[in-house]
Amino acid sequence: MRIIIVGAAGKAGQAVHQLMRERGHDIVTVGRTSGDVRCDISDEAQLARMWQQVGQVDAVVSAAGEVTYAPIGELSAADFDTSWKQKALAQINLVRTGLDHVPPRGSFTLISGIPSRDPVISGVAAATVNGAIESFVRAAAIEIAPRRINAVSPSVFTESLDDFGDYFPGFAPVDVADVARGFQKAVEGAATGEVIALP
Amino acid sequence: MRIIIVGAAGKAGQAVHQLMRERGHDIVTVGRTSGDVRCDISDEAQLARMWQQVGQVDAVVSAAGEVTYAPIGELSAADFDTSWKQKALAQINLVRTGLDHVPPRGSFTLISGIPSRDPVISGVAAATVNGAIESFVRAAAIEIAPRRINAVSPSVFTESLDDFGDYFPGFAPVDVADVARGFQKAVEGAATGEVIALP
Repeated sequence: MRIIIVGAAGKAGQAVHQLMRERGHDIVTVGRTSGDVRCDISDEAQLARMWQQVGQVDAVVSAAGEVTYAPIGELSAADFDTSWKQKALAQINLVRTGLDHVPPRGSFTLISGIPSRDPVISGVAAATVNGAIESFVRAAAIEIAPRRINAVSPSVFTESLDDFGDYFPGFAPVDVADVARGFQKAVEGAATGEVIALP
Repeated sequence: MRIIIVGAAGKAGQAVHQLMRERGHDIVTVGRTSGDVRCDISDEAQLARMWQQVGQVDAVVSAAGEVTYAPIGELSAADFDTSWKQKALAQINLVRTGLDHVPPRGSFTLISGIPSRDPVISGVAAATVNGAIESFVRAAAIEIAPRRINAVSPSVFTESLDDFGDYFPGFAPVDVADVARGFQKAVEGAATGEVIALP
């Protein structure tokens, strides 16, 4: 398959890239500052140019999106809005604008995250945008069929425990290699409208 | 209790207002073009003025928020963003800015809607923002305790079947009087972090 990986330079993106390459797929990497194609998918003009460069693909994989972690009393409206734009709306726009670039039976796989179902202190903006992404995926699935769409929703990465472990006390972390297998399941399998919770 | 009802002029808002009045509560109604206080809660400056006028309340009830219904291929980025701002971010800001106006054991009750869990054609923007609201509620609950926060998530209103029934084929509708009881349960009960699905 020809697969575009957005956010390929991140921890999850790198792991997905490695696994998909090992699986023999033809990969196009996209990143804001590195990759085969440079694109910030939260910028609509850059996103349109990206699709012109990339053309047709069998699968769209996104491991992109940043959210703000802070106590609810310290989060501004702008913090919520920026988290929405960077992680939820950007991935929604990736799907919207990519519909004509993916064939029937092709797929989109987005990334959300555990706080939407299992909240943590300081994770309310993360929970909010991840919940948006997961409900978007369930709803988009019934409209874009036979194209497929799913989300991978990981716990804190084992590889990110130094930075984020304190936000997730007692949570089972997930190795990015297992996150990559979640993306593989979504891309090479047949599910649609699913949220793949990891671990 | 002293209760502020935002979106009091809408179908659900009117029903909540009537039930809460019958229950003997002291009600402050808020609407964009009617009510005791005029406020568009999606405007941050208006929201700040509203809290100055309203002062302290025991419960904040919101039945406000519009979303765009259209097939995914016809929804623009602006349609998603406006739906987010009007329904999700506006209610999130109502909570953020209201924290100091609600005592311990006081409550916030927001409105979401059925498409987040049971999607319909043309309802992908609605699903997205309702999913955001529901995950926000679950996450905010653990931070704002002992204050409480819940969401009422209704199916299509029986009273709105003429306008919206075609979007919800075979869905059990819910009478707005039953939606009002959902809000009563959240306000007078003790639950927090719950999504009250109706019917």
